This record gives sequence, C-alpha cells and structure tokens, in this order.
Amino acid sequence: MKINEHYLDLKDSYLFSTVGRKARTYAQEHPDRKVISLGIGDVTLPLAPVVVDAMRAAAKEMGDAATFRGYGPEQGYAFLREAIQRYYAERGVTLSADEIFVSDGAKSDLGNLLDIFALDNTVLIPDPVYPVYQDTNTMLGRQVIYADANAGNGFLPLPDDSVHADVIYLCSPNNPTGAVYNREQLTRGVAYARREHAVILFDAAYECFIRDPEIPHSIYQIEGAQECAIEVCSFSKIAGFTGTRCGYTVVPMALTSGDTKLNSLWLRRQTTKFNGVSYVVQKAAEAVFTPEGRVQIETAIDYYHRNAQVMMQGMKDLGIWFTGGSASPYIWLKCPREMGSWEFFDFLLENASVVGTPGCGFGSNGEGFFRLTAFGNYEQTVEAVDRIKKLLG
Amino acid sequence: MKINEHYLDLKDSYLFSTVGRKARTYAQEHPDRKVISLGIGDVTLPLAPVVVDAMRAAAKEMGDAATFRGYGPEQGYAFLREAIQRYYAERGVTLSADEIFVSDGAKSDLGNLLDIFALDNTVLIPDPVYPVYQDTNTMLGRQVIYADANAGNGFLPLPDDSVHADVIYLCSPNNPTGAVYNREQLTRGVAYARREHAVILFDAAYECFIRDPEIPHSIYQIEGAQECAIEVCSFSKIAGFTGTRCGYTVVPMALTSGDTKLNSLWLRRQTTKFNGVSYVVQKAAEAVFTPEGRVQIETAIDYYHRNAQVMMQGMKDLGIWFTGGSASPYIWLKCPREMGSWEFFDFLLENASVVGTPGCGFGSNGEGFFRLTAFGNYEQTVEAVDRIKKLLG
Repeated sequence: MKINEHYLDLKDSYLFSTVGRKARTYAQEHPDRKVISLGIGDVTLPLAPVVVDAMRAAAKEMGDAATFRGYGPEQGYAFLREAIQRYYAERGVTLSADEIFVSDGAKSDLGNLLDIFALDNTVLIPDPVYPVYQDTNTMLGRQVIYADANAGNGFLPLPDDSVHADVIYLCSPNNPTGAVYNREQLTRGVAYARREHAVILFDAAYECFIRDPEIPHSIYQIEGAQECAIEVCSFSKIAGFTGTRCGYTVVPMALTSGDTKLNSLWLRRQTTKFNGVSYVVQKAAEAVFTPEGRVQIETAIDYYHRNAQVMMQGMKDLGIWFTGGSASPYIWLKCPREMGSWEFFDFLLENASVVGTPGCGFGSNGEGFFRLTAFGNYEQTVEAVDRIKKLLG
Repeated sequence: MKINEHYLDLKDSYLFSTVGRKARTYAQEHPDRKVISLGIGDVTLPLAPVVVDAMRAAAKEMGDAATFRGYGPEQGYAFLREAIQRYYAERGVTLSADEIFVSDGAKSDLGNLLDIFALDNTVLIPDPVYPVYQDTNTMLGRQVIYADANAGNGFLPLPDDSVHADVIYLCSPNNPTGAVYNREQLTRGVAYARREHAVILFDAAYECFIRDPEIPHSIYQIEGAQECAIEVCSFSKIAGFTGTRCGYTVVPMALTSGDTKLNSLWLRRQTTKFNGVSYVVQKAAEAVFTPEGRVQIETAIDYYHRNAQVMMQGMKDLGIWFTGGSASPYIWLKCPREMGSWEFFDFLLENASVVGTPGCGFGSNGEGFFRLTAFGNYEQTVEAVDRIKKLLG
C-alpha cells in the first residue's frame, strides 16, 4: 500500500508546544513568581445550568426503553436545526431547516467540506490564519495562494481582483487577529466570489462576540451570499462547548455548480461518512437557544468581553497598535520596540511573568505581532495588564 | 469552483427507503394485520444504568468551574484509551494507549481512514458489503475490486492470491451476512496482506456477539496482524451507543509504509480534522468497561442472542440455508423456492406481515438472499418466526 504522500508536506507546528515548554521552564526556575497565561484559545467558564439540565434529562431518556434513541438523522435532529433556523431568522436570514447540518464541531466541518470540491481548485487563504485551513488543503495536495493581512488593511484582507481563486476562506471575527469584517467589506467579498464563480467558506465561530449592530454575524446578511457561500459555526465559543462538541454548517440550496446543488453533495458526504451528533449533545445545544439559555450564555460572553476591554484599554494607554477585542476574545497587537514575536514573548515572560502567543506561529505576516486572549480569569487579566503597563509604560 | 466529480458516480441507494415505503403501504392497506419488522440494523434496548449515571455525572462536572473541561485530546482521554487497552489485554492483545484513537463512531473512521492512503491504491471489497466501504472509495475515484462472497465460501471471502490489492476490507462478524471468520481464515488473510504489503481495514463493530472462545474478536489475535492491519470498533452494538456516538480505531506502531508509521499519519489526520469526542460521551463509554457495566451490557447482548437463536431454529426447522446468528445479530438466508430477494420480501410481507431486508441491496452477490435481524422485541421475534414457519412449512 502507498500512503498519501501529501501528509509528508505538512509542517509540524511547534507553536503551542514551544509556548508551553517555555512557560513551564520559566515557572520552575522562578517558583516565587505567579505566571499568568493570556495565551489559551479555550473557554474557561462552565456550561450554563440550562445546558447541563438538558444534557442530564437527555441521558435519562436514553436509559428508558420508552424514550431511548438509536441512530438519529446524520444531518441532525429537526428540533436543533429548527432552533438554529430561528436564530438566523432573528438577523433577517431566511434558511430552510434542510440547509442546516449539525456536526461535532467547526474544525471537523472546515476540513471535511473540502471533500466535495475538485482537487485542482485554487484555494485562497489569509495569512496569518487558523492553521487548519492550510493543513487540510496541504493534505489533499491543493494549490494554495495567500491574501496578505497586515496593519495596512487592518488584518482584513479580501481577494485581489487580479487573481482567480475557487475556494476562499474568510473568518470573521477572525482567529487569530480578532479583526472583524464590516458590511461593505463582506459585500466586496461576495461580489468577488460571484464574479469568479468561487465559493466562500465563511468561518463564523466567533460571531457571538459581535456587539455592534452594524457588523454582520452571518455572511448571509449580505445579498447574494446564499449563491456563493457556505457558513460554518460552532457552539464552542457561543456556549462553551469546546469539550462538548457541537457545531453546524449551512449549505444553501441556491449554491450550485452547474446543475449540481452543493447541498446535495454535502448531504451525501455526511450521510456516507458521518452518523450524526450524540442525542444528549444535540439536546444540550438546543437548550442554548431557549430564553433562559440565551441569558445564561450572554453572561459568559459578557465576562470574556470585560476581559477584552481591560486588555484594549491597557494597549490604548500604552499607545500600542492593536486590532480585535471589540468583537472578539482576541487582541492582536504590534510588538512594541520593534521586537519580533518570539522576542516579545520572552521579554513579557521574563519581565512580567505573562504568557501570550507569538503571532508568527499563524503565518509569516504574523511576525512582529502578538496575540492575547480574553478567555482567562478577570482578576488575573487585570493583574497581567497592570504588569504589562508597568513594564512598558 | 469545480465540484468533486466522483460524487456524481455514486449510486443512490433506495434499499431502506423502498423497504420502508412498501411496509407503510402494506400497513395502510391492511390495518387489521400487525406488521413485525425484522429489518432494522439499529439497537432497541436502552443504555445501561451505569452508562446513564456516568453521563449524568459528567454533565454535572461540566457545569462546575472546578471540574469543567474544555478541549480534550483529539485522540481521546487517557481514561478511555486505557480502558480499551485493558479490554484488548483480556484477549491477550498488547496495545499501547497511543495506538488507540477514540472517535465518534466506526462509520466516520472507516471513511476518514482513506485520507491517509494514496489515491491510486487498489481497494478490495467483499460483495455483498456494508455500502459505506464502496461509497467512500467511489467518492475518491479509487479503483475497487471485489471478493465474491457466496454460499460456496460461507459468505467468507478472502483475497485471491492471483490478484493484488493495497487496501482490504474485512468485516467479522459480518454486516450484512452475520458470517464470522475463524482463526485459520484470518491467518490466511494476514498472510496475504503481509505478502502483498497491503493493509487490512478490519471492521470489528460486531465483535461483542462472538461467544465461541475459538473465534477471534480482534484481528490482532492473529500473529503478525499488527504489521498489516487497522482495526475499527464501536460502542454502538456493544453498548447500544448508536445514538450516543462513540467508537475507536487501533493503528499499531508496527504498521509502516517505508519509514512512515501509519499511526503518525492518522494522529496528524485526527489532530487536524477532528477535535475529539464529547467528554460526557467518553465518560459514558468508560463506564461500559466497569465490572457493573460489563454485566449490564451482557444482559442486552444476551437478549439479542436469544432472538437470533429463535430465528436460527426456525430456519433449521424449515431446512432453509442460512449463515450468521451464532456470533451476530444478523441471519442471512437463502430465499426459499428459488425466489429473488425482492420477490421474497413481497411474499413475506403479504403472507406473513413480516419485514426483512432484501440481500440484493448489499451487492450483486446478495441477490436471492435475505437478511433478518435480532435487534427486535423477543415476543415479536417469536411470533414472526412462527408466521414464517406456518407460511413455508
């Protein structure tokens, strides 16, 4: 047998392992200092009570012959797809329930969606980027071109009219930069995709952090997007489901290639290579959309927002350029004093005992930038920002 | 953008939808008759109490900041991988925990595993077969050759020495036929794979139905198999997890292609395109392996076994050729009176109000055969067999 040789082209990412190793070594060598991490991309607040109750009730149902559930629909139970449908309707986006597919998370879908496209498509990826976009295409040997994100365009690149791409990744609010596209920018993205007969893979995993009513939560708030975009979303950040695993993907019926509906292809992919999400997890996700659930998850998002505000104010006070924070748990800052990403990492760790993430780990355009996250504890976030201000002020 | 054209080569399967439609029409036209289905491939008994308790306790942990879990390891928590490791050790199979990958189910893994192999590999699939093996390869445009299963070889085909294959599917106990390979047959399969440098994808989803101590539960009970086989298993049938979603795949460190460990490729695939199984589901799966859990799941398997015994005795009494049943929830029988699969389906439905599954739906060699399943209710199974005996006796 022969292996898929494209796997040998994958670069190993040592970003988070190196960050972890350096932080541990520092802590061992300085047992007197309290290290604060603003480096994690994972939520820290527990699941909302209404979610836990729903999961416990569903588990009980599964233990009773009268209410037990075996195989469910691969694309998700109607109760959850209809709840998601209503969530979109709140923003004026009309979807049918069979345009919505429930999955075990955005990461799985973002990789698996590539199955339905031809191998010789050209893929456009922003730099810096969530590494999964790059790696899943490298695994298939696909040609990848990059859209440069930088301080000049606010880390909000759009495809250049002079290049052709078939598949375009857009992530808004962005991971890792926290930047968020406005309506005008997304309108230009959709116009490009329609003109080039390209498909946008729109990663909306962080949409719940958007507070400005002028900023779209969904690409489908842009006219014509249902003809050119697939949207991937997740309960991970909206409701702390990183360890509970549930997401969803929208493939509109209007999205076609010739006579073929992409919805039919994705349905065929999911019914053949997937067997649906656990019933108890789908019931937990449904609870997120109840009035009580909405209030409870908002409390957690508020908490992370407050952390972000603290970090944003700190950067403003120091006169450091940054983006993100207002619609995102991420602050993406220019390393002060012309330091490189790793140089600033070491400087911050050694002099303030604060851990962040070097921007260069997300792509070459990330060099000289640095990511801080709002997923930590509030008091520790305040203390970390105080330390950074003392160090750099 | 261009779509993956191989999706257009997929044949639509109308097997189960046609079965359902015919059964519904019959029931509407004969409201006085009680239709009994021996057609389903899904479990019907509820989750074991110990499993439900574990799931409810885990949900509670997730609602408490002190015990909340975010992202877990993509390959599964150590507590579950080590429980699976001990399950294998009971059969004398020594695995390390990092050879075991927890997933959301065997169906996902069986399709996703193909990612790590070159597209120009030749794939050998039995006929009749679980349709997922065929379809997932068709989606990639792979060359597929068939191993004929028939009454002559007891529906237990092995690769023919005269042909070369790179990837070989073996499913034992088999879906749809219920036939189970013995040690000598599996030894021949392993010898073929080692000689041809092929990899066996061994689907052991039904291993828990094996009672004969001479029959291997795992391909790794055959010497040399760790150098040529990947094994896929599931909690679906062992513990009724069809709607709870958990499985596992074993990729031994000894399985290599040149210098490359397939374990490293699969780890890279899973860490890039998957984010692990829900914590609550992994805790539920762990509970299956407790002493209490083992007793409770055995009760359910015994129940299905008793149904299978009733069906086997019925076929013996009628002198109908069949395989399966002893190590499987499936009975695969030769349609009596030289009837075709659909002809027998209609005959049985119209004259005994019993629903089964036409064998031709699983491949051309299934024509003239018929599948009955033991996943139903005991009293109904007894009644269905009585009706069949009255009809054909």
